[in-house]
Amino acid sequence: MTDDRRSAGAPTLEDVARAAGVSRATVSRVINGVRNVDPAIQEVVRQAVSVTGYAPNRAARSLVTRRADAVALVVSGAGVEADVGAEAEAGVGAEAAAGSGAGRAGGGSRATAGGGGSFTAQVFADPFFGRVVTGVVDYLRPRGMHPVLMFAETSRARDEVVAYLRQGSADGALVVSTHAEDPLPGLLTEAGLAAVLFARPARPVPISYVDLAHQDGARLAAEHLLARGCRRLATISGPLDVPAGRARLTGFRDTLARHGHAYIPVAEGRFTQESGEAAMERLLAEHPDLDGVFAANDLMATGACHVLREHGRRVPEDVAVVGFDDSSAALACRPPLTTVRQPVEAMAAEMARLLLDRPPGPSSPATSVIFEPELVVRASA
Amino acid sequence: MTDDRRSAGAPTLEDVARAAGVSRATVSRVINGVRNVDPAIQEVVRQAVSVTGYAPNRAARSLVTRRADAVALVVSGAGVEADVGAEAEAGVGAEAAAGSGAGRAGGGSRATAGGGGSFTAQVFADPFFGRVVTGVVDYLRPRGMHPVLMFAETSRARDEVVAYLRQGSADGALVVSTHAEDPLPGLLTEAGLAAVLFARPARPVPISYVDLAHQDGARLAAEHLLARGCRRLATISGPLDVPAGRARLTGFRDTLARHGHAYIPVAEGRFTQESGEAAMERLLAEHPDLDGVFAANDLMATGACHVLREHGRRVPEDVAVVGFDDSSAALACRPPLTTVRQPVEAMAAEMARLLLDRPPGPSSPATSVIFEPELVVRASA
Repeated sequence: MTDDRRSAGAPTLEDVARAAGVSRATVSRVINGVRNVDPAIQEVVRQAVSVTGYAPNRAARSLVTRRADAVALVVSGAGVEADVGAEAEAGVGAEAAAGSGAGRAGGGSRATAGGGGSFTAQVFADPFFGRVVTGVVDYLRPRGMHPVLMFAETSRARDEVVAYLRQGSADGALVVSTHAEDPLPGLLTEAGLAAVLFARPARPVPISYVDLAHQDGARLAAEHLLARGCRRLATISGPLDVPAGRARLTGFRDTLARHGHAYIPVAEGRFTQESGEAAMERLLAEHPDLDGVFAANDLMATGACHVLREHGRRVPEDVAVVGFDDSSAALACRPPLTTVRQPVEAMAAEMARLLLDRPPGPSSPATSVIFEPELVVRASA
Repeated sequence: MTDDRRSAGAPTLEDVARAAGVSRATVSRVINGVRNVDPAIQEVVRQAVSVTGYAPNRAARSLVTRRADAVALVVSGAGVEADVGAEAEAGVGAEAAAGSGAGRAGGGSRATAGGGGSFTAQVFADPFFGRVVTGVVDYLRPRGMHPVLMFAETSRARDEVVAYLRQGSADGALVVSTHAEDPLPGLLTEAGLAAVLFARPARPVPISYVDLAHQDGARLAAEHLLARGCRRLATISGPLDVPAGRARLTGFRDTLARHGHAYIPVAEGRFTQESGEAAMERLLAEHPDLDGVFAANDLMATGACHVLREHGRRVPEDVAVVGFDDSSAALACRPPLTTVRQPVEAMAAEMARLLLDRPPGPSSPATSVIFEPELVVRASA
């Protein structure tokens, strides 16, 4: 009975040919998109495919079309093979080139029983990555494609990604790099493989990317705090070896300098809530009279709000706080965060579009698409 | 020059044969794992593969091995085709069979510019799904396999998942269902496809699953609150048409009944922070003297803490709060949550193991693996 059900569940090319009243060869030509088949016959075959429920073997079709109809979605880091353990330990400090980060270690060390999972656990502890997946999936689905999720934080894992793409298992890679020193973008371009990055690579590599106008975003935060009347401002920056971290700090400082604020205290964080708490403690200790804080992402802004409350400061009455990203963390925070919106879903969809719409041939020039940030005003500032 | 690089990047079977000094046929047999090849020659070929960097075409290998070396990771819902829009609207109320849920709409409605992405956005707004991905990836990676991420909340999307598996694009499906009425488990078993669920299906289907002893977890929460001296207890339950939601409520009530507490107020939530806030408001309005709350997941417990603080109640001094899951939300909450740990990563890895280790043949009996919860004591209770 099980075999009956199975054969009912897996109709063959012969079943389709019989239902359509044509030869197997004709069915095969229609399915593989070979031209010069009479349109009426094509229609008959398509109906027979539909009636029988026939699903052409994907591997066989890939051999014909030379397309995998799959895209690799790669989250990469910068570790080397021997560093797996060390990197897992140091992982809480992992920087994120992508504006938000892979920093926070999930449910703490307990979240990664076995230890080997630290990198993946850190990655998904940040709402940023879920938004990337959302944008990619929403673009690919209507096109009948699905992302293959890969992680590449060691040299061996990077080699696996390159081999996977070379094998034709995916038609290209969408890469979210979590580290300024990540060698993967360079490896992909050297191998002539199709790839698009989220965020400009820290080191110059001829590879396409989408990014945000980070300085403009930080300017929006600075102008909002000034317009509220804040005069003793400080900032919790992201990691400064990451372009997005640097650009947000520069945009904030430059805007304030144009308004006469020559010196702005800065405490560097790592895009995690914990690092935001530690940075806020340092800033408060040295500048107890501050009245406005710009944190370079929402997780750090959430941490800052916690610490401010613990020190008896009301947000926003005593200290106004502006975040960056407009992730789910901004809404979960009390008070809900005023923040600079990074349209991560739209940016991720654009990555997929750039990858799939690229002109044929291996030598497509690298291109970039820069998105504009937007201020979202809620209760924290 | 680009062509040079490309040819350097894509060595052929011939290159391997030349480097190894054997025939193409021999290389092919070694690569495809055909037996009766001299071990010494196998080693020579493997070295030549390594030296040349040859990557066998995956589609071609799949045709030989009849394996995709890929697993579909499916997040499914219960919508029908015509309901896509309606379901997206109602999405904030989507229930989660998996213990935590797909409820919260990411960064609000703004997180899903374009509208079509609501389901995927909701899914990843919950830290639960990142933990599932982590567990699956950590199990698959050492085995050279990668998850293909699919979403199936409409009848059309479900058909696509079934077709994808029938085509041999993946060797089976790991399914996280977000709705009690989800028809996907039934469709997969009817089609004779290999699949494992996270959490017992709400309706009986002969399919393998991993799950948690939810009642035992709720018992741990109840005993902890009683041991603290709490006497006026209430609970924020999950959706009661979901087995995990029902089981946690039953376990909490039964334990308290055994200690003489005949009546326990309950407010039903949807596993989202927002629904936890609303439930806590209702409970406080009707029972202002309550001194302990068990919320059926950490997001709802976080919402409860916010509302309690807004009403001037100190946690845990005035009201003790216990969550469930031990997700990243438990650590992000102020105060950090005492919670019942669900080892989601280990459970997800076990799903993958059950799928890949199943005995050959289409008629493997369904099997289940139940994990034990554990109380994690932090500051909230």
